[in-house]
Amino acid sequence: MRRVYITGIGQTPVREHWDRSARDLAASSILQALEQAGIDKADAIYVGNALSGELTGQEQLAALIADFAGLTGTEAIRVEAAGASGGAAVRLGYLAVASGVHDTVLVTGVEKMSDLSGPAVEEALATSTDEEYEAIHGLSIAASHALLMRRYMYDYDLERRDFAHFSVNSHRNAVNNEYAMFRRPITVEAFEKARLVADPISLLDSAPVADGAATIVLCSDKAAGKRANSSVEITGSALATDAVALHDRPNPLFLRAVQESAHKAYAQAGVTPKQIDIFEPHDAFAILAALSLEASGLAPEGEGVRLAMEGEIALEGRIPICTMGGQKARGYPVGAAGVYQIVELAQQLRGDAGANQVDARVGMTQSIGGTGATAVTHILRSP
Amino acid sequence: MRRVYITGIGQTPVREHWDRSARDLAASSILQALEQAGIDKADAIYVGNALSGELTGQEQLAALIADFAGLTGTEAIRVEAAGASGGAAVRLGYLAVASGVHDTVLVTGVEKMSDLSGPAVEEALATSTDEEYEAIHGLSIAASHALLMRRYMYDYDLERRDFAHFSVNSHRNAVNNEYAMFRRPITVEAFEKARLVADPISLLDSAPVADGAATIVLCSDKAAGKRANSSVEITGSALATDAVALHDRPNPLFLRAVQESAHKAYAQAGVTPKQIDIFEPHDAFAILAALSLEASGLAPEGEGVRLAMEGEIALEGRIPICTMGGQKARGYPVGAAGVYQIVELAQQLRGDAGANQVDARVGMTQSIGGTGATAVTHILRSP
Repeated sequence: MRRVYITGIGQTPVREHWDRSARDLAASSILQALEQAGIDKADAIYVGNALSGELTGQEQLAALIADFAGLTGTEAIRVEAAGASGGAAVRLGYLAVASGVHDTVLVTGVEKMSDLSGPAVEEALATSTDEEYEAIHGLSIAASHALLMRRYMYDYDLERRDFAHFSVNSHRNAVNNEYAMFRRPITVEAFEKARLVADPISLLDSAPVADGAATIVLCSDKAAGKRANSSVEITGSALATDAVALHDRPNPLFLRAVQESAHKAYAQAGVTPKQIDIFEPHDAFAILAALSLEASGLAPEGEGVRLAMEGEIALEGRIPICTMGGQKARGYPVGAAGVYQIVELAQQLRGDAGANQVDARVGMTQSIGGTGATAVTHILRSP
Repeated sequence: MRRVYITGIGQTPVREHWDRSARDLAASSILQALEQAGIDKADAIYVGNALSGELTGQEQLAALIADFAGLTGTEAIRVEAAGASGGAAVRLGYLAVASGVHDTVLVTGVEKMSDLSGPAVEEALATSTDEEYEAIHGLSIAASHALLMRRYMYDYDLERRDFAHFSVNSHRNAVNNEYAMFRRPITVEAFEKARLVADPISLLDSAPVADGAATIVLCSDKAAGKRANSSVEITGSALATDAVALHDRPNPLFLRAVQESAHKAYAQAGVTPKQIDIFEPHDAFAILAALSLEASGLAPEGEGVRLAMEGEIALEGRIPICTMGGQKARGYPVGAAGVYQIVELAQQLRGDAGANQVDARVGMTQSIGGTGATAVTHILRSP
């Protein structure tokens, strides 16, 4: 396997972009990334997108985006794994370069969600659950996580307010990220008083649906040339799955796919959890961030929330997470989220994270589909 | 790049399976393929599926299928490229094995279409056009091809009945394929009298939507072991794209993505069009089969239909196509179609095609999205 470098990144602000389409957002991030990488084409484009068919009536999105970005003809494939779509696209891009199939690959994550009403979006998001056993009975994606959170609170004797620290951290970090959607801090008190979405999950505990696109350029050693010395390297990549329905898992509070993908990635990168300096988890809901910390071996089982309560996830803590705002405050354009995570981690590892800069050499991202049925872990190393 | 063998195939009959879900169909084809390959697990599963979100409200289908097939935890990713979804999944599976990333990969194509009404399916199928410039104005997928066919008839002075020979050939070949949906011959006269769907495209010129799943097992030389000697090999694989909207192409009657993917595949396999003994094109509509023959270099421009009129596409012809019924008569479960093509070509190249057996050493499949925005070509060689 060859070494794989991130030689360019691009992103659009995460917003309700009422005046922009998916292809427009995607192309904008692609052009930025190409320019930064100093190239004008790529061997292939992998597009992570979760809900373009449901939300905008557009499939075959990869060909559409390639054409609109001026790359007509390029091998272009869309990858879907619900909330893990972006991470899955990064994984395929990584494999294509690492294996020697391609020298230069673009990975774009994009989602356009603002055109539909709230209930329509909620219904689309529920497609990441098991439709025949969960969604059909009305179990929304927020409700799925509410079940997990309620059980966690019961098992570990916690209250709803104890989860606030994840959102407080994400919002604090988003203040300095110009691409973030919600650039204002929130308090534990505001979290406590927030309107409930699906008890015990509240508005301030739910990542907001939004529009956005992010792109990375992946290059082999050869294609990167001298840029390799100044580029972030992907040193670990793994994807694992689990049963989609919560009732099909032996212990719903333990994310097996996260554990497996994280451990494979650690092994490949030759690091232990202790060596992870910074972590971008899939914090669509606080409970998912907590469970991810645990299954990844960054916190003991039942201690994920405590890690947040003790301030260890803050920029100055032991394991900073959601350093640019995470899904919660940067915003959550579903299929794009996994690529935003890589972009943000690359910013950190290159020393381009501005006021939120963390001292980090090794970082990890994790992209999750549904309540944990797909998990993609990537480990990156600073230049 | 390592050599890649197809060591197992599986398929369900293509039908309206009112009593079976996508996961059920997929698992059934997976278990057949695994048994034939003599293995009980794989390193990864790539799932080709076009419309599961729109038609059944189920995304994250790859994890769902892996779990239901008893392969919980396995790396599983869904790939979408409209009608080319199956072919795109085969391409990623091929790359994963050829590159040395994985030793054994399952590629499954599946589509479950019977649960919705005709108009709902038609709307879902239109997502493969350019939504903002084509579908939104009411251009269905049949109507898109009607435009192409009308123009072709005008340019080359042909009548509607001249296109009949594609459907006649496909229906004739489906008679002997127990997995095919329409196992009855049709005549040129019946084609002429058939009810119009979108003038000049008629019911007997349109591939029927249907349910079905097909799976192949791809193995490296090492993993195939002694089976390599009796297994079909994939010797060429390429995917290319084009503008999605017809009006964005310089010549809508020339399928650039088909040409590019075919020529890359020829080059990789080290063959010329003349050496292709058998071809499984994307014959969702006769016009698409004709244009594919031309862009692939198997017929001069404007001669694709004549090739059919002269009987050269029949089992005993110069270049037999749709030998097991094609999309037209085997049936067209959209995202599964590209994998069915590989399964059927493998049957031919192994000598397992029964009454439809053709004398062939080198064969080609082509999976197309929309009116040609994505094209995936594979070249296979007999053991």
